[in-house]
Amino acid sequence: MDRIPILQMGKCLLVTIQVDLQDQTALALQDDLATKIEATGAHGVLIDISALELVDSFIGRMLASISGIARVLDATTVVVGMQPAVAITLVELGLSLEGVRTALNVERGMQLLTAAAKERDLDGGL
Amino acid sequence: MDRIPILQMGKCLLVTIQVDLQDQTALALQDDLATKIEATGAHGVLIDISALELVDSFIGRMLASISGIARVLDATTVVVGMQPAVAITLVELGLSLEGVRTALNVERGMQLLTAAAKERDLDGGL
Repeated sequence: MDRIPILQMGKCLLVTIQVDLQDQTALALQDDLATKIEATGAHGVLIDISALELVDSFIGRMLASISGIARVLDATTVVVGMQPAVAITLVELGLSLEGVRTALNVERGMQLLTAAAKERDLDGGL
Repeated sequence: MDRIPILQMGKCLLVTIQVDLQDQTALALQDDLATKIEATGAHGVLIDISALELVDSFIGRMLASISGIARVLDATTVVVGMQPAVAITLVELGLSLEGVRTALNVERGMQLLTAAAKERDLDGGL
């Protein structure tokens, strides 16, 4: 069981990270997400990290990388559920997750994605 | 990291099971779910088992037990994402997951819960 499942909800994909990510699992997740975004035409990716008690530079880079991949595939990534202690440690470590959007919980993340989708639809004529 | 995160989406709770469940984790999940149903007033619980390649009698019992607990707390449980091989093995083992509702994927599970909620609202006058 080295693959993290990706759930589809409408035009959004939801990933819950529950285990400490190893290199292989993280790479597989990137691949799977890219494939799934292409296959489903999803416009949003929600990554829930509420189970993580530690986010190191490796996970930080992976989140930024997933966010970048999704962006070029025309999808917005939102990282949700970060524990307060994790946020404190991240900033203390000088990792600010640049380029990664965050939201307090899944519901707020979903609202963010819905708003982003609406904005895009308005620009759709261009 | 021995707790499985429970995500709230509107009036539904979503649980993604990704790791082989040990007794302790399963018990913690039951406790957490019961507490969360009570705290949020959720009327539906979605359990995604798409990452599980094996569902034995222990997990089967746990799913039935969670379903029962949710029912007395006035919430409907739907198990989603079962792999075809898992379904075949379950039936061959004589485990039919009685009392547990299932759906093909999260989206259909969510539709089922929404329909159940509407039905309940119609009966609300009683």
